[in-house]
Amino acid sequence: MISQEMAKLGKKRSIIREIFEYGKIRKAEIGEENVFDFSIGNPSVPAPDCVNAELTKIIAETDSIKLHGYTSAQGDYITRKAIADFINKTENASLDPNLIYMTVGAAAALTICFHAITLPQDEIIVFSPYFAEYKVFIEGANAKFVVSPSDNKTLLPDYEIFKSKINANTKAVVINSPNNPSGVIYKEDVIIKLADILREKQKEYGHPIYIVSDEPYRELVYDGIKVPFLTNYYENSLVCYSFSKVLSLPGERIGYIAVNPKMSDASEMYAAICGAGRSLGFICAPSIFQKLIPNVLGQTSDISVYKENRDILYKALTEYGFRCVHPDGAFYLYIETPEPNSIAFAEKAKKYELLVVPADDFGSSGFARIAYCVTTEQIKKSLPYFKKLAIDYGLTK
Amino acid sequence: MISQEMAKLGKKRSIIREIFEYGKIRKAEIGEENVFDFSIGNPSVPAPDCVNAELTKIIAETDSIKLHGYTSAQGDYITRKAIADFINKTENASLDPNLIYMTVGAAAALTICFHAITLPQDEIIVFSPYFAEYKVFIEGANAKFVVSPSDNKTLLPDYEIFKSKINANTKAVVINSPNNPSGVIYKEDVIIKLADILREKQKEYGHPIYIVSDEPYRELVYDGIKVPFLTNYYENSLVCYSFSKVLSLPGERIGYIAVNPKMSDASEMYAAICGAGRSLGFICAPSIFQKLIPNVLGQTSDISVYKENRDILYKALTEYGFRCVHPDGAFYLYIETPEPNSIAFAEKAKKYELLVVPADDFGSSGFARIAYCVTTEQIKKSLPYFKKLAIDYGLTK
Repeated sequence: MISQEMAKLGKKRSIIREIFEYGKIRKAEIGEENVFDFSIGNPSVPAPDCVNAELTKIIAETDSIKLHGYTSAQGDYITRKAIADFINKTENASLDPNLIYMTVGAAAALTICFHAITLPQDEIIVFSPYFAEYKVFIEGANAKFVVSPSDNKTLLPDYEIFKSKINANTKAVVINSPNNPSGVIYKEDVIIKLADILREKQKEYGHPIYIVSDEPYRELVYDGIKVPFLTNYYENSLVCYSFSKVLSLPGERIGYIAVNPKMSDASEMYAAICGAGRSLGFICAPSIFQKLIPNVLGQTSDISVYKENRDILYKALTEYGFRCVHPDGAFYLYIETPEPNSIAFAEKAKKYELLVVPADDFGSSGFARIAYCVTTEQIKKSLPYFKKLAIDYGLTK
Repeated sequence: MISQEMAKLGKKRSIIREIFEYGKIRKAEIGEENVFDFSIGNPSVPAPDCVNAELTKIIAETDSIKLHGYTSAQGDYITRKAIADFINKTENASLDPNLIYMTVGAAAALTICFHAITLPQDEIIVFSPYFAEYKVFIEGANAKFVVSPSDNKTLLPDYEIFKSKINANTKAVVINSPNNPSGVIYKEDVIIKLADILREKQKEYGHPIYIVSDEPYRELVYDGIKVPFLTNYYENSLVCYSFSKVLSLPGERIGYIAVNPKMSDASEMYAAICGAGRSLGFICAPSIFQKLIPNVLGQTSDISVYKENRDILYKALTEYGFRCVHPDGAFYLYIETPEPNSIAFAEKAKKYELLVVPADDFGSSGFARIAYCVTTEQIKKSLPYFKKLAIDYGLTK
């Protein structure tokens, strides 16, 4: 008599969670230091010092009613203005504070967008490999979840397949760059190509097709590579952002939606976002974190740790014979598994106390995700075990 | 091409918001101290000192990764255990930490519950007058919103009308005690009567009918009146709680759902709640406030201010000839309007700089809500204006 669909969602753990739970048990058995848990994308570096310093200052100096009271549903104007100013300066964009909506993180930003845009029969396309919850969020908004497989060599969109997935019911496309699980960045040429295809398809079908850009890893980029800011390239775009990864605050739930002011129906879209937020029960984003954001924009936790981890791991694993697209961002390495069955590979890795996530959780196969957001010491200690795994598969001697 | 339903929700301000916005303009015109704004149910007393002291301590003493990291979706076990222990001790209840789910406030608790229980064709009953967002939340979960008008004299359920509203499609009933907008409390006899009716109807229709209890005002009770704890009276009950009002933290979004362990399918219900939370994009409740709660359970902001306000206002208004059910809790006075048209009454009140909310926003008519969560000084200063309004209506001389 309750929703079986919801009960199933509540009971079914993701593969990631299964492995994480296994890791907890295994650590209890053989000691935490002997299990190499690369399962979870949880930031491993602390929040920058300014975060706790500013929080403490805000608590000490702000009137309680103002500090802890309701903000407007779309968020404090001062916060939205600071975000728009910051992005406009750093990305040469033209965001409008009155088209920014503060959310309890990127997940909420996504569900609100999907509920705002979805009409009956609508389809939303994602590129695989994809963050598993996209399916849950898109189907939760009653849209059809459509997968467009990426090119297996580059992990970038396969444009011909992509075109074939678009039809009269296509309402939106989700992109996620830097990508979870692949670490791949969609550089300017990719964004331009996607935008061109969508503009043509919009003309063909006579209605907007939105790009919903999920950007929790925007600043987790190494080697100075530039992540193009979507609103500069495509009018019908919605940016979903979270401060979870850049400030190591994933449990605090603070992010935003930015509606591209160049969208022709931007204010209607913003109204629908406000309506969807209201309908889903998001009264406002946590007030204290809204107050924090203007004071810490541009700050990041120590991202150099992730870069060092990536460099060590990528170098060693490719030396051992594993194949992997070089990841330019996020904190994931996505290796081709030496046997086609990713789940069997992940099981074998367990024998060497290496916990990695098979691609099946990302709507793909033949790959495994290594979340290298752990200590550099753990990375170094894990290398001999990866070598043994490579030997087991005959990749090296 | 976007959801017009959502756009309408986003654009349509509630009557409360309209009046609040009018108040802001009027204050700019004639000075803040000359406008008596009773429109918004925003706590007017600061959070108790322990809140900011504990927050500061938690920030100083907790490892950053633990403090700001993801909690499990259902919330930190230590927080859920503390809540269960506290309620079990103070309410003689039998809550189970493994059936408590932490939420970003009561609104999220309600939307999650409605999504967890609703199947196609389902109906959910609320008693009018009701908190306006119930309609938005229930319809957002695709259930039919059914209103059961209360008795106009007592503002308690009219049991015969209530029975007539229950049918084979009835999935749940929402109660809200202490009540917004009436301040009325459902005492033990009311809860027992509702439970008896529902048990009979469950038998008649052969399926559970849940009570969803919205309890943000649980502790805002004066004169030592006891609010019965629902799970002690009715098996198929879900408690939706928020710390917003008791701790004056409405902008921070922290609350919970408690599934009654006596429910026969409690663990299935809990799974559906976890699934609905996931589907709607609630990753976890803000971590820092989850850490705070165990340290401040049982604390309240200075509720004596609300009691004093209520006493002064109730005494004066009834002396002036207004009629009002004596409110035992929350921070609202719900007066009968001297003319049947509540909106016309609220307009006339504006002439005396009194901003009150007509009952139409609460699915009712012939009443107006006075939110007395303002300073006691404002209450005292407003009395001559209420008297003038009463004279205008010929209620007093």
